[in-house]
Amino acid sequence: MKVIVLGADGYLGWPLSLRLAAEGHQVVGVDNLVTRKSVQSVGSDTAIPIGSMEQRLKAAKDIHGFHIGFHQGDITNYEFLRRVLKQEKPDSVVHFAEQRSAPFSMINAEHASYTMSNNIVGTINLIYSIMEVNPAIAMVKMGTMGEFGTPNFDIPESAFIETEINGRKDRITTPKFAGSWYHWTKVHDTNNILYANKVWRITATDIMQGPVYGTRTREITDERLHTRFDFDEVWGTVVNRFCVQSVLGMPLTAYGKGTQVRGYLSLEDSVTALSLLVNNPPPRGEYRVANQFVELLSINQIAEIVKESAKKLGIQVEISHVENPRVEADSHYYNPERKVLPALGFRPKLKMADLAGQLISDLVPCKTHMERFKNSIMPRTKWRNVDNTRADAPALKEAKA
Amino acid sequence: MKVIVLGADGYLGWPLSLRLAAEGHQVVGVDNLVTRKSVQSVGSDTAIPIGSMEQRLKAAKDIHGFHIGFHQGDITNYEFLRRVLKQEKPDSVVHFAEQRSAPFSMINAEHASYTMSNNIVGTINLIYSIMEVNPAIAMVKMGTMGEFGTPNFDIPESAFIETEINGRKDRITTPKFAGSWYHWTKVHDTNNILYANKVWRITATDIMQGPVYGTRTREITDERLHTRFDFDEVWGTVVNRFCVQSVLGMPLTAYGKGTQVRGYLSLEDSVTALSLLVNNPPPRGEYRVANQFVELLSINQIAEIVKESAKKLGIQVEISHVENPRVEADSHYYNPERKVLPALGFRPKLKMADLAGQLISDLVPCKTHMERFKNSIMPRTKWRNVDNTRADAPALKEAKA
Repeated sequence: MKVIVLGADGYLGWPLSLRLAAEGHQVVGVDNLVTRKSVQSVGSDTAIPIGSMEQRLKAAKDIHGFHIGFHQGDITNYEFLRRVLKQEKPDSVVHFAEQRSAPFSMINAEHASYTMSNNIVGTINLIYSIMEVNPAIAMVKMGTMGEFGTPNFDIPESAFIETEINGRKDRITTPKFAGSWYHWTKVHDTNNILYANKVWRITATDIMQGPVYGTRTREITDERLHTRFDFDEVWGTVVNRFCVQSVLGMPLTAYGKGTQVRGYLSLEDSVTALSLLVNNPPPRGEYRVANQFVELLSINQIAEIVKESAKKLGIQVEISHVENPRVEADSHYYNPERKVLPALGFRPKLKMADLAGQLISDLVPCKTHMERFKNSIMPRTKWRNVDNTRADAPALKEAKA
Repeated sequence: MKVIVLGADGYLGWPLSLRLAAEGHQVVGVDNLVTRKSVQSVGSDTAIPIGSMEQRLKAAKDIHGFHIGFHQGDITNYEFLRRVLKQEKPDSVVHFAEQRSAPFSMINAEHASYTMSNNIVGTINLIYSIMEVNPAIAMVKMGTMGEFGTPNFDIPESAFIETEINGRKDRITTPKFAGSWYHWTKVHDTNNILYANKVWRITATDIMQGPVYGTRTREITDERLHTRFDFDEVWGTVVNRFCVQSVLGMPLTAYGKGTQVRGYLSLEDSVTALSLLVNNPPPRGEYRVANQFVELLSINQIAEIVKESAKKLGIQVEISHVENPRVEADSHYYNPERKVLPALGFRPKLKMADLAGQLISDLVPCKTHMERFKNSIMPRTKWRNVDNTRADAPALKEAKA
């Protein structure tokens, strides 16, 4: 199978490209490399150094014999994207090429509208280029479990559900209520893809994924093959940030009461699940939702896991609760359905308690590098603030130039 | 009260500006004047000639003594919009400044992504500029009844509804399923405004309006005060288009079976309802939905009304059914709730059967002008086509230059 990975320079995009290549697929990456600059624009950097895309492609070839193609460009440029699809003739396009940070989208007006238009236009362009180049191409799109929010009902793993409103039955789209502009872009994307499926029968898998943690997959066998690893308050997600805090001797900063529950999974399990979804597309013309996570855990449980794992490595860490910068429910029901990936044979290999130690160990050699960006870890982007612009931060346009 | 009208050069924006000025409000219009060019880009023009904004502002002053301010600019430019709010210090901002044609959004990839980013970024910019300049400013935002689609339940006039999913109760956002990229932008806007209301308590009225028809309001007493009147397949809505077809001796082209039902209202009633919503904002910090329409009618009923009204003027017209260019249900339940505007004292004055004759009469003097654009009336933009680009149409960027 030939697969294009949009966002191939990213935390998931790079390891998935390696996995698909390892499975024998022809893989072509696409990326505008903007995340490298966007992370620097908030005063941070990947904890684990990564090479340029050229160096990584060469390493993949030298170490594993993978020939991964690459086009540098921005998918919000329609002509670029259509040209790549026309030239490469993929069977499937994996779409990770979105601004993927909730705090980044909440910094100020400029970051909010950039996130909105960047994400929505990229997905609209992919819909159109598939329909214009070859409607048989299957789209595999990264959404987020955050699209659902934390509803009081079991979260369905389906596009539509039957319900009764004012005494009359109808089929409605699965209710969503997102918790940041970033998360809303994913809801808007879902609605747009559903509409393209209705009008044009586009074939799509919409992945509702929980936060991913970890440094490795089985193809990352050499430091030249590392994927980026973000840990600051804007680009890092909670597990990875806690592990960095342990290494730096900082307390683990749980936001709010720490009773918020989400569905987590390791990088290895994420890549395995994604590969199953790429290898097993839905029937032509169908839209499929996949809820992708392994363990439901609260922030407090995660903090305990990281604390215990650090302790085994001789690192003592404290857990401290800080005011929640986000607007989210502390206590809530959370029971997402999960049947699509198990039906495809997905059997998660790793629990957080088994992996956190290795994660921390992988970060120890990067301590000096991470120290330089220590100031970027504590929450500064507050949801209730309309303007979180930092005196030390460049404007968005300058940051990306 | 001081009111800014974003989109003051438009079909509704201009008459509403006149009405608010007539009521004694201080009115400031904002527009990028792009609709004038966008209509020309599809080979059409307003049926009723309108002067430049300068000429219309002067006419409003000369004829009625209204002093209406005006800023020419694009609200997708955040600094421009914030500067206008900061300078003008409005109590309320009416937001009509969006790309408002469903067929225009369905022309091709370029028009789809333009509609998405233009509409969503404009609304995000308005949210932020209100919150930054003065959070007490009330937003009055034009949505569409089309956000709801045609569900099998009574359409609630509320942001949220109680429901039961998988045996558990929760409050969900009122289900939406739109019928074009344009209509989806309004759903995305609604979700974004709801989110701004949750996080920042922005005060907003979200108007779900049905198609508007007519040429006049009580302030349009002179030809120099006319509002634009579109009739082509891209920019015209059904009633106005049927009236033009009568004048031009063309059959009235009902799309599909003609059994599609929507809620219609006259321009005069629309402006009256809008003024009520501006004059009576919800309590500070609240989000309010208003379903705005007067009569529920099918396309076939409208065609009969226009046919009968033309007949009384000595014009014989045929009704012809053409293949529906849109993807929409022919036969469906349709019962939208309507209580907010009646509670504010809204008593519609006009029924379509009373007004269609005057509408047709108003168009007779424009016959020669409309003849020139006769080719733009029959449906050419087809929802099932991914690319409806016309050989004779300029690219979007050139059309707007």
